[in-house]
Amino acid sequence: MTDCPGDGVGAASPMELYEKLTAQGDKVRTLKTAKADKADVDAAVQLLLKLKVDYKHTTGSDYKAGCPPSEDAVVQDGGPSGDGAEEDTVDPWNVSTSSAKGVDYDKLIVRFGSSKVDQELVDRIEKISGQKPHRFLRRGIFFSHRDMHQVLDAYEKQKSFYLYTGRGPSSQAMHVGHLIPFIFTKWLQDVFDIPLVIQLTDDEKYLWKDLTLEDCHRFAVENAKDIIACGFDVNKTFIFSDLDYMGSSPDFYRNVVKIQKHVTFNQVKGIFGFTDSDCIGKISFPAIQAAPSFSNSFPQIFKGRKDVTCLIPCAIDQDPYFRMTRDVAPRIGYPKPALLHSTFFPALQGAQTKMSASDANSSIFLTDTAKQIKNKVNKHAFSGGKDTVEEHRKHGGNPDVDVSFMYLTFFLEDDEQLEKIRQDYASGALLTGELKKILIETLQPMITAHQEKRKQVTEETVKQFMTPRPLNF
Amino acid sequence: MTDCPGDGVGAASPMELYEKLTAQGDKVRTLKTAKADKADVDAAVQLLLKLKVDYKHTTGSDYKAGCPPSEDAVVQDGGPSGDGAEEDTVDPWNVSTSSAKGVDYDKLIVRFGSSKVDQELVDRIEKISGQKPHRFLRRGIFFSHRDMHQVLDAYEKQKSFYLYTGRGPSSQAMHVGHLIPFIFTKWLQDVFDIPLVIQLTDDEKYLWKDLTLEDCHRFAVENAKDIIACGFDVNKTFIFSDLDYMGSSPDFYRNVVKIQKHVTFNQVKGIFGFTDSDCIGKISFPAIQAAPSFSNSFPQIFKGRKDVTCLIPCAIDQDPYFRMTRDVAPRIGYPKPALLHSTFFPALQGAQTKMSASDANSSIFLTDTAKQIKNKVNKHAFSGGKDTVEEHRKHGGNPDVDVSFMYLTFFLEDDEQLEKIRQDYASGALLTGELKKILIETLQPMITAHQEKRKQVTEETVKQFMTPRPLNF
Repeated sequence: MTDCPGDGVGAASPMELYEKLTAQGDKVRTLKTAKADKADVDAAVQLLLKLKVDYKHTTGSDYKAGCPPSEDAVVQDGGPSGDGAEEDTVDPWNVSTSSAKGVDYDKLIVRFGSSKVDQELVDRIEKISGQKPHRFLRRGIFFSHRDMHQVLDAYEKQKSFYLYTGRGPSSQAMHVGHLIPFIFTKWLQDVFDIPLVIQLTDDEKYLWKDLTLEDCHRFAVENAKDIIACGFDVNKTFIFSDLDYMGSSPDFYRNVVKIQKHVTFNQVKGIFGFTDSDCIGKISFPAIQAAPSFSNSFPQIFKGRKDVTCLIPCAIDQDPYFRMTRDVAPRIGYPKPALLHSTFFPALQGAQTKMSASDANSSIFLTDTAKQIKNKVNKHAFSGGKDTVEEHRKHGGNPDVDVSFMYLTFFLEDDEQLEKIRQDYASGALLTGELKKILIETLQPMITAHQEKRKQVTEETVKQFMTPRPLNF
Repeated sequence: MTDCPGDGVGAASPMELYEKLTAQGDKVRTLKTAKADKADVDAAVQLLLKLKVDYKHTTGSDYKAGCPPSEDAVVQDGGPSGDGAEEDTVDPWNVSTSSAKGVDYDKLIVRFGSSKVDQELVDRIEKISGQKPHRFLRRGIFFSHRDMHQVLDAYEKQKSFYLYTGRGPSSQAMHVGHLIPFIFTKWLQDVFDIPLVIQLTDDEKYLWKDLTLEDCHRFAVENAKDIIACGFDVNKTFIFSDLDYMGSSPDFYRNVVKIQKHVTFNQVKGIFGFTDSDCIGKISFPAIQAAPSFSNSFPQIFKGRKDVTCLIPCAIDQDPYFRMTRDVAPRIGYPKPALLHSTFFPALQGAQTKMSASDANSSIFLTDTAKQIKNKVNKHAFSGGKDTVEEHRKHGGNPDVDVSFMYLTFFLEDDEQLEKIRQDYASGALLTGELKKILIETLQPMITAHQEKRKQVTEETVKQFMTPRPLNF
C-alpha cells in the first residue's frame, strides 16, 4: 500500500489518503454508536470532511467507501511539470524524448507514482538473496519499482513469489535491448529460486501490426528460442504464446473475463490513449497482458492458488498495463503484482528513442556476425566525443550521451573497469575509436555465445518450455 | 449478396450499389487501357461518378474499392419511419413496443434490411426437404431471413451447411419461450441432417449481470439439460459454454481475435449502443458471439474447413450480432452466415415486451407443475375477450392481442383446429375461459413430457454433448 514515490513528492498519496479517510469514517461511526461527547464527535467529523476535501483535491474524484482510488489518479495528478520543459513520451507504443541523455527517469517516477530503486533496496536485495546485486541493479538500469519491499518482507517470512515477464513478438529478429528484461529475470529466478512465466503476446502483435496470425505465432516460437538461450531453468519456467494458451486454459480465460468486467473503455482510453476508431481487440487486450499477474491463471503451476504474489520485471513503458492491473486486483480479490522497471536500451543513433526491430542499423541484432557488430558500432554508434583528436584530448568526451559507453553500462560486468573507462573518456585519455573497440570486444563474444546457445535449443526444448505443466520450486 | 429487403423498399441496397460501382470502376479501367473512344470513356466515367454520389447518399460514406458497405448502412438508413408512429425498440437487451399486437415485424424487416420469409421460401424449403414445413414457418413465427435462398441453392448442389444457435444462461430457469429457437433448430437438423453447434454465452451473462463466473457456468450446464431434452441428436450436436470452450480451442480464440481486429469501437457503439462507461469485456464480447458463425472455429467437427456455410436460427433481437458478423466475414475470408429470425414469444401479460426469466408470473416455466400452468394462464394471460359474457357473445374477442391465442399459434400443431379457434373466438362463440382451457390442455402435457425427458438427461449425457469431438453427418 505504499505507492508513494521514494523522493520528490512530499504530499500523501491517494491511497494513503483513502486509508486515512476509511479509518476516520470508522472512528466517527464508533463515536456516534458509543454516544460520545458531542465535541469529540464534531472534531472527528471535521477531520473527516477535511480529509474528503484533500482527497478530492488530490485525486480529482469524490471519496467513496469501498472504492480505493485508481492508481491513475497519481498519473493524472503528477502530469506535466511546471518547469516548462517538454515532457517525455512513454507508453507501450511510443517512447521519445528531446534529450540526448534519454528519458528523465526521475521525473517518470514522479509521473507514474512508482518508487525509486534506492541504495537501501539494492542493499536489502543483496542481504536477502545473499548474492551480489546484478549490475542492472547496481547501475540503476532497473531504477523504479512498486511494492518491492512488501515482496521482500513476505519472502523473509517464507512466503514465496513468482516472476512474470514477456515480449511482443513483432518479428523474428531480436536485438540486444530485448534481452535486458530476460537477463535480469534469469538472475532473479536464480537468486530467489522461484517459478517464472513468460508471455509472448502474439495476439497483441496481430492486433497492432499488419501481420497474419500465423506470422505472429511463428515469431513467438522463434523469439522463445532466443529467450531460452538466456539460460532459463526448464523446470521453473513456462513460456506461452497467447494464441495457444488462451485457447488451452479455461482458468486463464476466466481471469481475462474477470478483468475485462472491471475495466471500462473510459479507463483504457485514459491509460492507453485508445480512441473510438480503435478495434475492439486492442481495447480489450490489456486484460490479456494483466491476467498472468494472478497466480490462478496457471493452475498447473500453482495448483489453483490465487494468492501467490507476482513480481514483474519489465521496461517502464509497460507500466500502464500494470497500473491498470493493480487497480483491478483488489476488486477481483487478487493481490496486486509488484514491479521492477528498467530504463530503455538506447538505439545506436542515440538515446532519444527506443530501438526499432525494423531498422537493422538501429541496434545490434542477436543474429549479427562479429563483422556486422564491428561495422555497426563504428559507423552508427552515436559518439559523445569531440570532432578532432586534438579537441578530444583537450576537452574530453561526454559519456552521458555516448551510446557506446551506455551500452557498456548494460553489458560490461566489471564496475571498476567501467568507471575507469568513464573517467578516461571524460578526460580525453580515451578516444572514441578506443571506446568503440572496447564495446565491440564486449559484444562480439557475448553475441557469439548467445548464438551458440540458441543453436542448441531444439524444437523439442521449445515444446518442453511451452507446454503447460507443473514446475519444480 | 442479396440483402435487399423482400418488400417495401424500392431503391438499390448499399451492397447492390457497391457491386455496381466496383463493376463500373473495372469498366472504366478496361476502356482506358484499351484506349477506347473518348466519348465512351467519358460516359463510363460519368456513370461512375453518379453511382458514387448515389452510394454516398445511401450509405452516408464514400465508396472505397475493396471495402464493401457495412450492413448497418441499411439500418441507419432505414431508421425511424416518417409515419409519426413510435418506433419499436429491438436489440439484444431491450425489446419493447407500444402496440398490444407486439412488435411490427414488417417494419423491422425494412429497418434491419433483412428479407421476409414469404410463401415462396416456405414452399421451397418443403420441396427441398421433402417435409411439411414446421408450424413456425407456416405461421410466420420465423418471419425474416438473410441469404436462405443461397443456402438452399448450395444444398441442392450437394453443398451442405451447419446450424448455429445459442442461449445466454442468465438463470437456471428457462421458460417455454426459450425453447422456440431450439424446437425449430431441432426440426432443421432433422430434415436437413446436418451438424449443429449451440453456444451458451456464460461469459456474456457474467459481463452483463451481477453474477459470479461460477453461477453463470452452472446455469450454462443446467440450461444445457433443458436444451438436450428438446431431442437433439448427440451424434450431430456440440453444445459449449464459452467459459470452457474459449479456453479449450486455440482455433476458436484465433477467430475471435481476427474478428476483434476488424471491428472498431465506433462500430459496436453504432450497432449495440455501447458507451465509454461500458466495460471492455462488453465491448469485445460481440466477437465471441460472432466466432461460431465460421466453421473453422470447430476444427474437430469440420476438419479445419473454413468454407462450410452457417445458418443461424435465432430471435430477431440477436440480429445486430450477426449484421456485424456478416460485415466482417468477407474481410477475413469467410462466408457470411445466413439467418432465420423468429418473432418474440410474448409475456403472459401481453405482447408489448419480451418475457423476463426473473418474473415467475411473466411466463410458463419448464419447471412449472400442471397446477401452476393452469393458475398462471387463468390469472395472468392477457385476454382479448370482452368484459362480460354477453358482450363477448355479441361482439366477439380479439385473437390478435389475446396471449392465450398467441401461445396456441406457437404450440398447437393442427392448423385447422387453430383457425377454427381463431374464428370462434373472434365471433364470440368461444369464451375466454374456454380458450384458456385449450391452452392449458396444450401446455400441460407438453411441459410434463419435457420434464420427463429432462429427467433422463444425466451428467454423463451433458458431458457427451459438451465435449469437443467429431460429429457424424
